[in-house]
Amino acid sequence: MSRQGNRAGDPRKVNGELFTLTYGALVAQLIKDYENDEQVNKQLDKMGYNMGVRLIEDFLARANTGKCNDFRETADVIAKVAFKMYLGLTPVVSNWSTAGDEFSLLLESNPLTEFVELPPGHSNLNYSNLLCGALRGALEMVQMDVDVRFVQDILKGDNITEIRLKFIKRLEDAVPVGED
Amino acid sequence: MSRQGNRAGDPRKVNGELFTLTYGALVAQLIKDYENDEQVNKQLDKMGYNMGVRLIEDFLARANTGKCNDFRETADVIAKVAFKMYLGLTPVVSNWSTAGDEFSLLLESNPLTEFVELPPGHSNLNYSNLLCGALRGALEMVQMDVDVRFVQDILKGDNITEIRLKFIKRLEDAVPVGED
Repeated sequence: MSRQGNRAGDPRKVNGELFTLTYGALVAQLIKDYENDEQVNKQLDKMGYNMGVRLIEDFLARANTGKCNDFRETADVIAKVAFKMYLGLTPVVSNWSTAGDEFSLLLESNPLTEFVELPPGHSNLNYSNLLCGALRGALEMVQMDVDVRFVQDILKGDNITEIRLKFIKRLEDAVPVGED
Repeated sequence: MSRQGNRAGDPRKVNGELFTLTYGALVAQLIKDYENDEQVNKQLDKMGYNMGVRLIEDFLARANTGKCNDFRETADVIAKVAFKMYLGLTPVVSNWSTAGDEFSLLLESNPLTEFVELPPGHSNLNYSNLLCGALRGALEMVQMDVDVRFVQDILKGDNITEIRLKFIKRLEDAVPVGED
């Protein structure tokens, strides 16, 4: 689906339960369509990537945060501005690697999984993998190649949901078409 | 996906653009999966029905509107309370039949279709058909059998989006298990 028109005014808010159920319908459909959890995870990541690539423009326009100087600033903007703006929650930034190139987002709740139970036989499903893809896509648009994945998930019986982000490399600015 | 736990506190709100893109991913997936628009419409209606059946309980608890005495009151609650609560907009109730058993909801905007263009070759797709299903499912839970369908859609070039609701019949209260 392509998009048209201008984004104007305050972003509209929709009810979280409606979002949760719509996302659940999407995951359920993918489970029907693909042979195994790994393929569903991949598909969710890909869908999320496409969303992240689109959402970042709007995010930068609204958030008005300026350029991040390092990965620590990026982590704070993701947790305190982006998650707040899109999902209405603020994960805790934690578990920094000594090199400062990896951190975790810790979520005590997750609107994507509210009232959700994993169906039996899907222990490898990363139900909320769309979030990883969205972060990856959005970060790529600001020239950051970042690996994003779930390492813990309350849905799977863990005590907390943990998304791990690992900085891979700075991407070159894309060369505009027509230039050599 | 089944649900667990209590609904407590204010309903969480999520960003409308995130919802629009997630819904778009769902519709795009169904277009891949099904042979024609009619089947996609049917699937969206079915998914919406399952959502409506779940959302109504929460809606009644939060909306605190009391029992509707007639279809006109139902129309007002749908437009002014339900649409406002879930999608952040208030459609106009219009085009009543003389018998008072049919009306239209007129939407000047629709968060499901913001920035969306129908892909070519899908002129029979009722992109937002999930809404019809959700209304049908929710109304069935309050003992009303109502036919719900799109008659106009801005996505298809109409000037306005119009959802038509036709009251079919009052359903009998379900007899509790164990009673004859």
